[in-house]
Amino acid sequence: MESSNILVVLNDALEDGRKHIAKGSIATYIPELAKVDKNLIGATIVTSDGKRYHAGDWNKNFTMQSISKTISLIFALDHIGEEVVFSKVGMEPSGDPFNSMIKLEYKSAIPSNPLINAGAIAVAGLIADRFEFEDFLKFVTIVCGREDISVDENVYNSENEAGNLNRSIAYFLKHNGVIETDVEKALSFYFKMCSLNINTLDLANYAAILANGGRDIMSGKQLIDKSILKIVKSLMVTCGMYDGSGKFAIKVGMPAKSGVGGGIVAFAENNMGIGVFGPSLDVNGNSIGGYRILEYLSEKLGLHYFA
Amino acid sequence: MESSNILVVLNDALEDGRKHIAKGSIATYIPELAKVDKNLIGATIVTSDGKRYHAGDWNKNFTMQSISKTISLIFALDHIGEEVVFSKVGMEPSGDPFNSMIKLEYKSAIPSNPLINAGAIAVAGLIADRFEFEDFLKFVTIVCGREDISVDENVYNSENEAGNLNRSIAYFLKHNGVIETDVEKALSFYFKMCSLNINTLDLANYAAILANGGRDIMSGKQLIDKSILKIVKSLMVTCGMYDGSGKFAIKVGMPAKSGVGGGIVAFAENNMGIGVFGPSLDVNGNSIGGYRILEYLSEKLGLHYFA
Amino acid sequence: MESSNILVVLNDALEDGRKHIAKGSIATYIPELAKVDKNLIGATIVTSDGKRYHAGDWNKNFTMQSISKTISLIFALDHIGEEVVFSKVGMEPSGDPFNSMIKLEYKSAIPSNPLINAGAIAVAGLIADRFEFEDFLKFVTIVCGREDISVDENVYNSENEAGNLNRSIAYFLKHNGVIETDVEKALSFYFKMCSLNINTLDLANYAAILANGGRDIMSGKQLIDKSILKIVKSLMVTCGMYDGSGKFAIKVGMPAKSGVGGGIVAFAENNMGIGVFGPSLDVNGNSIGGYRILEYLSEKLGLHYFA
Amino acid sequence: MESSNILVVLNDALEDGRKHIAKGSIATYIPELAKVDKNLIGATIVTSDGKRYHAGDWNKNFTMQSISKTISLIFALDHIGEEVVFSKVGMEPSGDPFNSMIKLEYKSAIPSNPLINAGAIAVAGLIADRFEFEDFLKFVTIVCGREDISVDENVYNSENEAGNLNRSIAYFLKHNGVIETDVEKALSFYFKMCSLNINTLDLANYAAILANGGRDIMSGKQLIDKSILKIVKSLMVTCGMYDGSGKFAIKVGMPAKSGVGGGIVAFAENNMGIGVFGPSLDVNGNSIGGYRILEYLSEKLGLHYFA
Repeated sequence: MESSNILVVLNDALEDGRKHIAKGSIATYIPELAKVDKNLIGATIVTSDGKRYHAGDWNKNFTMQSISKTISLIFALDHIGEEVVFSKVGMEPSGDPFNSMIKLEYKSAIPSNPLINAGAIAVAGLIADRFEFEDFLKFVTIVCGREDISVDENVYNSENEAGNLNRSIAYFLKHNGVIETDVEKALSFYFKMCSLNINTLDLANYAAILANGGRDIMSGKQLIDKSILKIVKSLMVTCGMYDGSGKFAIKVGMPAKSGVGGGIVAFAENNMGIGVFGPSLDVNGNSIGGYRILEYLSEKLGLHYFA
Repeated sequence: MESSNILVVLNDALEDGRKHIAKGSIATYIPELAKVDKNLIGATIVTSDGKRYHAGDWNKNFTMQSISKTISLIFALDHIGEEVVFSKVGMEPSGDPFNSMIKLEYKSAIPSNPLINAGAIAVAGLIADRFEFEDFLKFVTIVCGREDISVDENVYNSENEAGNLNRSIAYFLKHNGVIETDVEKALSFYFKMCSLNINTLDLANYAAILANGGRDIMSGKQLIDKSILKIVKSLMVTCGMYDGSGKFAIKVGMPAKSGVGGGIVAFAENNMGIGVFGPSLDVNGNSIGGYRILEYLSEKLGLHYFA
Repeated sequence: MESSNILVVLNDALEDGRKHIAKGSIATYIPELAKVDKNLIGATIVTSDGKRYHAGDWNKNFTMQSISKTISLIFALDHIGEEVVFSKVGMEPSGDPFNSMIKLEYKSAIPSNPLINAGAIAVAGLIADRFEFEDFLKFVTIVCGREDISVDENVYNSENEAGNLNRSIAYFLKHNGVIETDVEKALSFYFKMCSLNINTLDLANYAAILANGGRDIMSGKQLIDKSILKIVKSLMVTCGMYDGSGKFAIKVGMPAKSGVGGGIVAFAENNMGIGVFGPSLDVNGNSIGGYRILEYLSEKLGLHYFA
Repeated sequence: MESSNILVVLNDALEDGRKHIAKGSIATYIPELAKVDKNLIGATIVTSDGKRYHAGDWNKNFTMQSISKTISLIFALDHIGEEVVFSKVGMEPSGDPFNSMIKLEYKSAIPSNPLINAGAIAVAGLIADRFEFEDFLKFVTIVCGREDISVDENVYNSENEAGNLNRSIAYFLKHNGVIETDVEKALSFYFKMCSLNINTLDLANYAAILANGGRDIMSGKQLIDKSILKIVKSLMVTCGMYDGSGKFAIKVGMPAKSGVGGGIVAFAENNMGIGVFGPSLDVNGNSIGGYRILEYLSEKLGLHYFA
């Protein structure tokens, strides 16, 4: 497809997404998140041949939130290993809300998967027990292609203060032996990774690496091992969009991960990486405008993996 | 890949799968299923260019069981429509065992998706209310490429007699208004479709259609609409292998659906359809040898969608 | 207390109860029940010295519904034995609604206790497997002191037709091996006992026997064994008022059992038996006016077991 | 009954209880509790006429654990009021284990009742927000009739360190707004009250007050309000013996509360208060020997409230 066309489609997608903003609402469970302008919407595409396409508020900052769960998972699989990681979390969709604890009590002592809160906190515990947050941050800057990514201290403090449900989950995991390190250490790591300030280009860069066999599309350098990619991509398909993952797989058909900050990272294999942003969320906690942008792009550019 | 190589790999896969038989066990909840020879194992590949490869007990009969849920879903989407179908079932992984009723009580009145028992019984109710079983059977024979497929009456009677949990589910759905037709009519349809006698070639033929945009690979005739394919394939990825769907997506990476009769249907997009059979099941109810065959083929032939 | 005073208090209680009728609503899940006049309210007291006190619509007929669960339990304990009965049901409050199935799946294969639907259906199965309904009916007429008690056929048919949730529960119990007899036979027995037509005098007569060590207060004949009484009375305290049993134990403090037909049977040990009726129900399914009558009587006559 | 007889029965009961010790096991979830001698067993009866009867290890110290939940409830009802207390906890049996969180998520934001951990922590939060622990301790010494009751610091520290599940529960309650004060403050109060060192005489003294309308049996002074007694006694009946409350109500028939330290407080209305101790626990967490002592006393002395 010609470059000019991609840009046209992207802008059309953005305008289509914008129409859905009013139907959603801003995340309010973290006071700091509630301050964001609900009407922001932006997107960036990075194609496998290295071209970039931007639309709307593509370069506005927002916090990574749950999207960071995919990067911490990659980091843990790379540095700690698949065996240890999957002794602490499962690989299955939970069928429950992202912050649910029910299955921990009646079904399995380990969280269903690393993309729900419980699972991501377990993985954060593994990393925090062995690495400094700066080690992880360094890796984030590499996969996002921007050196000055940093923690939004206001959001971090707000997450920490309002984080009683996550704290409850973490102590349950400690009780179950899933978290072996200090609970507050694990939570601090988790809240920090959720509070990383990024924009849609950062996400699209990261997505382009996922789309291209783990290689930096500019340098060709292998940044993520292929065996790790299989795991992360598959989990993005089955569990990436909270309680709406199944419908997203059907309607959009791209591996993706959303965050309550309004960002979504998605990609079409060997084709393009996409980052979208829109803080107005649907009932499942996914960006309502961003979801529509991805659906539009999937339709018009034929990005569904079962198109 | 040359034909001779596919056959070699398929035979190696089968021998590898055979080693796992002893670790599994035959389904016993339906008395008639418990009579099957545990050591059977077979597989068929039908490639997109129409070649067939067989191994082991590929032509032994077994009952379709849950694999039929994908065909009844296709039939319902085609003849009754997406809107009606998804007013009765959801699109999300359930995170619970295939025969669980918990979510029906505490979460949602409609079943999580059409591939768990509750969802498939709901879909069966929709069809049974509008069509004869023979109408559906005709469609099965078309997608499987064999005219003389029929109900195994012994298994059907056994399912019907031992089907108290499915009956319990069905009456719960009736209570919730999900089933509008007569419960026994819905169940009779459901038990019949589960009791259809097939072999791995039938499954591979069906899989080849799924792999090739819904077209019959010989005649080129469009048998399944593309918009329907998106739905069914995506659900096979997220929910096709019972409570082991997430791990299968990671380890094998093919859309698939298993049945407790020991069959699994799977495919690699635009490449090949696969049918495997082995009645010895793992703890999740998936053929333990068949699972291994698919994992082996995925590795050696590079069939993972995120390879 | 003088007889005249009891009658005054009873009439005051009734008028107090009447004020609450508007806040409740008629049971509608069984069409036939929905036809009842919401404003009916009545009560009968039978004291241990054999005196009777009536108020309001004391002699209007209504169906026994869940109140019959206490009589079937007594019958089963007497004729089948404690060991068999408590191999099929537990002795613990369920903490869930009376028609819940959740615990059957994630906690215990046998129902929590014989006063929730699941437990009462299990007990009905035990009886129906060994006795005719007429044998049980005979016992009901004895404990209620009226020979011509009979099944309300309209309610019975309505229960049977609308009984999909109970049918679902019954098939689950059959699946778990809790019900060994034919499911429809168990359900038919259950629906019949729920459909028995009674009035508040019948209930008060029955309650007086419970209050007086199992003896008929006129003849002195031992109708219910003392060891059985301990079981039934204790269960009435812990589980008798559906999901409001704990509050009722605190606020009213009498062993009691309610039914969605609007009746409640209650008693003060060695003192009096009480039958109340009012078809307008609170959110837990207890007669809203009847509840208030009992609370009023408990306060004014000092009937709380921990007064 | 003559005094000599009570002592004989008590000693017989103790010897009967002793036979059951081997079938139980010491609580191990708090390391400090695991150090106790499993074979200890003791009991004290204080009759309403002020006589005391002792048997076995009646004067050995143990920690109060969950028995303290009844005293903190009385304290909160007295000083903070019924309305506030029951805005934070319910009055119903939970049907789940004492340390379960499931219902907090799928059913009700407030704990089922004040005698499960979640409910007791909620009540502890209310008190800790308004009083010093010493204020509460003073009340404990009064109802137990011994001035030098104090916190076992080793157990307290052990509870605090091993208290991850209670901490998880507390943060969940904080998230739900049930705990308004600082979580660690609530937990510290809770762990302290659980760690109070007592003996069976202390429990029997407290029980005698419960049995005698809230009055000190020596001085006649009203220590607990009658309206509060109704609440606490009723909750002891419906929820006092963890997941075995229903069976205990049937088999023993006394209001009671157990703790995993091995103590049980129980009483027969207007008759006697009983304290028993035996650290070997049954599967529900109740003293296995102590349970048997109470059952024996109930039988031989006719203490069942429905005897």
